[in-house]
Amino acid sequence: MKNYFIAKSRRVRSTPYTSRIENQGVTAYSVYNHMLLPAAFGSLEDSYHHLKEHVQVWDVAGERQVEISGKDSAKLVQLMTCRDLSKSKVGRCYYCPIIDDKAGLINDPVVLKLDEQRWWISIADSDVILFAKGLAIGNKFDVKIFEPNVDILAVQGPKSFKLMEKIFGTKISEMKFFGFDYFEFSGTKHLIARSGWSKQGGYEIYVENIKSGLALYDKLFEFGKEFNVKSGCPNLIERIESALLSYGNDIDNNDNPLECGLGKYVNLDTDVNFLGKEKLKEVKKKGIKRKLMGVIIEAKEINISKSIDLINDNNEKIGELRSGVYSPNFKKVIGIAMVDKLYCEVSQTFKISINDSIFEGKVCDLPFI
Amino acid sequence: MKNYFIAKSRRVRSTPYTSRIENQGVTAYSVYNHMLLPAAFGSLEDSYHHLKEHVQVWDVAGERQVEISGKDSAKLVQLMTCRDLSKSKVGRCYYCPIIDDKAGLINDPVVLKLDEQRWWISIADSDVILFAKGLAIGNKFDVKIFEPNVDILAVQGPKSFKLMEKIFGTKISEMKFFGFDYFEFSGTKHLIARSGWSKQGGYEIYVENIKSGLALYDKLFEFGKEFNVKSGCPNLIERIESALLSYGNDIDNNDNPLECGLGKYVNLDTDVNFLGKEKLKEVKKKGIKRKLMGVIIEAKEINISKSIDLINDNNEKIGELRSGVYSPNFKKVIGIAMVDKLYCEVSQTFKISINDSIFEGKVCDLPFI
Repeated sequence: MKNYFIAKSRRVRSTPYTSRIENQGVTAYSVYNHMLLPAAFGSLEDSYHHLKEHVQVWDVAGERQVEISGKDSAKLVQLMTCRDLSKSKVGRCYYCPIIDDKAGLINDPVVLKLDEQRWWISIADSDVILFAKGLAIGNKFDVKIFEPNVDILAVQGPKSFKLMEKIFGTKISEMKFFGFDYFEFSGTKHLIARSGWSKQGGYEIYVENIKSGLALYDKLFEFGKEFNVKSGCPNLIERIESALLSYGNDIDNNDNPLECGLGKYVNLDTDVNFLGKEKLKEVKKKGIKRKLMGVIIEAKEINISKSIDLINDNNEKIGELRSGVYSPNFKKVIGIAMVDKLYCEVSQTFKISINDSIFEGKVCDLPFI
Repeated sequence: MKNYFIAKSRRVRSTPYTSRIENQGVTAYSVYNHMLLPAAFGSLEDSYHHLKEHVQVWDVAGERQVEISGKDSAKLVQLMTCRDLSKSKVGRCYYCPIIDDKAGLINDPVVLKLDEQRWWISIADSDVILFAKGLAIGNKFDVKIFEPNVDILAVQGPKSFKLMEKIFGTKISEMKFFGFDYFEFSGTKHLIARSGWSKQGGYEIYVENIKSGLALYDKLFEFGKEFNVKSGCPNLIERIESALLSYGNDIDNNDNPLECGLGKYVNLDTDVNFLGKEKLKEVKKKGIKRKLMGVIIEAKEINISKSIDLINDNNEKIGELRSGVYSPNFKKVIGIAMVDKLYCEVSQTFKISINDSIFEGKVCDLPFI
């Protein structure tokens, strides 16, 4: 596959860490929430193995925050998600599908409850701020909505715990998964959550003070030498094996959360008021028509820039592949596909055309590992 | 400046024309509305000269449409823009700043009135669909909102008129600027507007039937040989010289339309109801605090990936450069900057740091040409 350059501009925002990661060998970018998101530091496979064994620092400033505060803030946040937040606690993160009135997914952020009347929605790639503003204006809610200057650094990998402990003390390794707290670094407090877009464990540092964040970035590399720290970014192999869904790739506005295996975040038997609730009740009653599944394909490489049809023996489309990558574990291509209900049994076979060649594939459960 | 690759994925959507432009030598992409937007076909300067003399076909499918239809559609479209649309006509395009309740710009689309109760908002780079949905839900408007499958082909340059006439007949050259109509190509009707993101003249073809669009694409190159047709894309030199503003680059949500020189699209002395009206009245009364201006800098090259401060002789920040490029006309760098009101007189001088060197610059009027 031929490679193309990315054209930089103010519209495709740099992050505070861009010059650092460029010195450290970033080779490719994606764009996420109108911001540069590093996509590769050389070999994807080398980064994958490194992430699973050591520790990486990721510039994920593209995970922007939508801050919602004020008297009606809880009401607005709840209106946007099908997950019941009535018992949510300050200091905790919540994975929350955001859906519209037709139950179509708009985003799948992590919501941080900063205070009873103050929330951060840590978004995937769509302008949730515009949805929130529209709803707030239309409903005359008493809220303040804006994008704060928060540029997340993720520290991911099995050695992330030791590295972070070396900087912030043992208190940080006591924090539970999806908890967050405030930790001091050279006189500046940083909100740090035990979270991140890998299944290898780690933290996300919500940097508000850029100067302190840059010093912290450098400290992570200085103190990280003994842990073989490297720059990294969300890794396509690791995230597909772990079935960490990607909004825009695996799921989009034409999908509802029940089709996407997000049933445990759909709380229909509650009194809370959220958009799309009646629609989801209807979907649940009738049953879903298709489902997000894993697939394993007898191929050695794949590059996806749009959906690719899955075809049965009668040459009918039975689903579409949305993400895919060669997995060094399986020595095959693995991927995430939306599959018609009739065909979404494990071991269902299909054919798929990749670069004009036909390959055999099989449906499987998610996650792969 | 080192170049970086773009990582493709389904989230950064390809267009129906992607394989064609890749065969025709696209070298760089930007991302626009979650879609690939070609940014260069080799030399920017060569493309600039070609665009001003001949005709180019542009894959601008990234200019997505938000379709709003239904009983309350006109009310919703008007609510979002400070431009008075009460006398708008079917068959016409309207440049409409979209603003929020604080008068901050959210987008600056071209709005097409397809019917009394059916509109397309041809958007710049932000998810206007989410703002529209939020407002419609909150206000309980009777509307249908979705993103139709429309992939625009732009035909731009002085010879675009002859080329389009050769395919669609003389009726197409009779169409007035910002008018649109339906034209047949091999049995398929296409909505074509006399518009486009250059000042060299031309058309935008709103392709709904992909198969016909691809045949039309090939026909444009077949029939265009005699006009020296080439693939192209919005050209940074041409658009800055012409002061075609770019949302996300020159203007953003922290700016109001009066600061951005969009006063003629701000209709405060009307009865129409739109968001931010009171705020804009207040701004108008008090006077703006800063203004979008042209700048000429005594430098030979520039690459912008974020704002760069303009500094006065006392080392105070007096504004920020948001877009910039070397202009072969002026043999200097030209750009678009937001300048503090005190300093936005033509010929005001400033200093600016580009790649660690200090250059002299001067404020000027827009457009440059």
